[in-house]
Amino acid sequence: MTSSQVLAEVNSTMKTTEATTQAFENIVRTRRSIRVFECHAIPETIMRRCLDLTLLAPNSSNLQPWEFYWVRDEAKKEQLAKCCLGQPAAVTAAEMVVCVARRDTWKRNRKWMLELLDQANASNPVPASAKRYYKTLVPLACGQGPGYLLGPFKKLVMNLIGLRKPSPRGPAGKSDMRVWAHKTTALACQNLMLSLRAYGYDSCPMEGFDGARVKRLLSLPRGAEICMVISAGKRSEKGVYGKQVRFPKKHFVFEV
Amino acid sequence: MTSSQVLAEVNSTMKTTEATTQAFENIVRTRRSIRVFECHAIPETIMRRCLDLTLLAPNSSNLQPWEFYWVRDEAKKEQLAKCCLGQPAAVTAAEMVVCVARRDTWKRNRKWMLELLDQANASNPVPASAKRYYKTLVPLACGQGPGYLLGPFKKLVMNLIGLRKPSPRGPAGKSDMRVWAHKTTALACQNLMLSLRAYGYDSCPMEGFDGARVKRLLSLPRGAEICMVISAGKRSEKGVYGKQVRFPKKHFVFEV
Repeated sequence: MTSSQVLAEVNSTMKTTEATTQAFENIVRTRRSIRVFECHAIPETIMRRCLDLTLLAPNSSNLQPWEFYWVRDEAKKEQLAKCCLGQPAAVTAAEMVVCVARRDTWKRNRKWMLELLDQANASNPVPASAKRYYKTLVPLACGQGPGYLLGPFKKLVMNLIGLRKPSPRGPAGKSDMRVWAHKTTALACQNLMLSLRAYGYDSCPMEGFDGARVKRLLSLPRGAEICMVISAGKRSEKGVYGKQVRFPKKHFVFEV
Repeated sequence: MTSSQVLAEVNSTMKTTEATTQAFENIVRTRRSIRVFECHAIPETIMRRCLDLTLLAPNSSNLQPWEFYWVRDEAKKEQLAKCCLGQPAAVTAAEMVVCVARRDTWKRNRKWMLELLDQANASNPVPASAKRYYKTLVPLACGQGPGYLLGPFKKLVMNLIGLRKPSPRGPAGKSDMRVWAHKTTALACQNLMLSLRAYGYDSCPMEGFDGARVKRLLSLPRGAEICMVISAGKRSEKGVYGKQVRFPKKHFVFEV
């Protein structure tokens, strides 16, 4: 079924247009991980615009545990490509963005949220529950004690409460906080890759890199981890490695 | 700067149109996490279309470590809303999709990739390096030994090699494999949420749920984890909790 048929079928209260859905489908369907880029710059206004859209992804409790390092310095870029094991997607990239998951910035960002909520007034009211959420629940959820030592204890308590009633089971411990930061960061990464595509450019999300060296290159602290490195540019036709392969949908989408 | 100004500035070799970029920006900018949905169904053709687009996200080595459970059974849906702690975004949702990260399906999916690569022929050639990649490198990277016991050993070896030359530092151990599966799954989750928006619908990514109970509800195995539950429907105006808050960009985007 084409997207116009889908739309026709539900031509009721939708607040979208066929042009919008087709443009979007086109972006998603033509996005491929590009392994070789042409020698062709991306205008910096477009890079900045794509990075703006990146930050509009949803994120966990609005704690924004992400950072994006657009590596522009030529020497650093060369080093970064080496850290990406010299893969062509890195070496030929016009631009590279190191996408970083921060499991440690929630305290600072929680404080910022509380400051914002304190500025509430009659024209911009804030429910008491929102303040309570950031004051009490966020530290309870994200706090793991010094060196994440409270993790196992939190897990035990959560599982005990969970015996009686539905109750969150995490994040409890370092591994959970890593997952927490990485998954929110990845939502933004997808925004970045689709934005580039919307502006006529291409990308490759890379996981084959030396994380320790990339962290050193960017002087990142202990609580930062590289989620992925996204290289970007104009696709070279030889940069598309074959047709897109997805295994049958029945193994991945279940209607239950 | 408006998107048309950005485009005008770079009106060169771009293969995109102002209509496309504006449609995309509109989708990204109007997407909000919706906490209350109107009583309004989503046509199943649209849900299926959005789930198709979900699976087109990039993913780690094309190992597709994700699963999406569209919960349609009314009784199950009610139970799922309870597992989501009865939050309005779940209770009022027209549809709910449980997005699952699988750290354990890479073996099966690697086998499928190898079978596909074996079907290569003159009209559809496959470089020897691709076969080698799935035959040798993938098990080396993803394999962690029984009970993830090889993790610390892998970490040690990778760090020793890394002393001399750029070298990947993971995935080594269970925590890394969790991160690995969750971050790829999150890329697809963002596709799902933007797709819903493109079709005029809304979503809320939820992390406040009882993962153990959701797993039981869907009979998920040990190696499966709930990445997030995405509820969907038509936004109620009271379902948007205030204006979108993003802290200043300078704390999250760095040009280096």
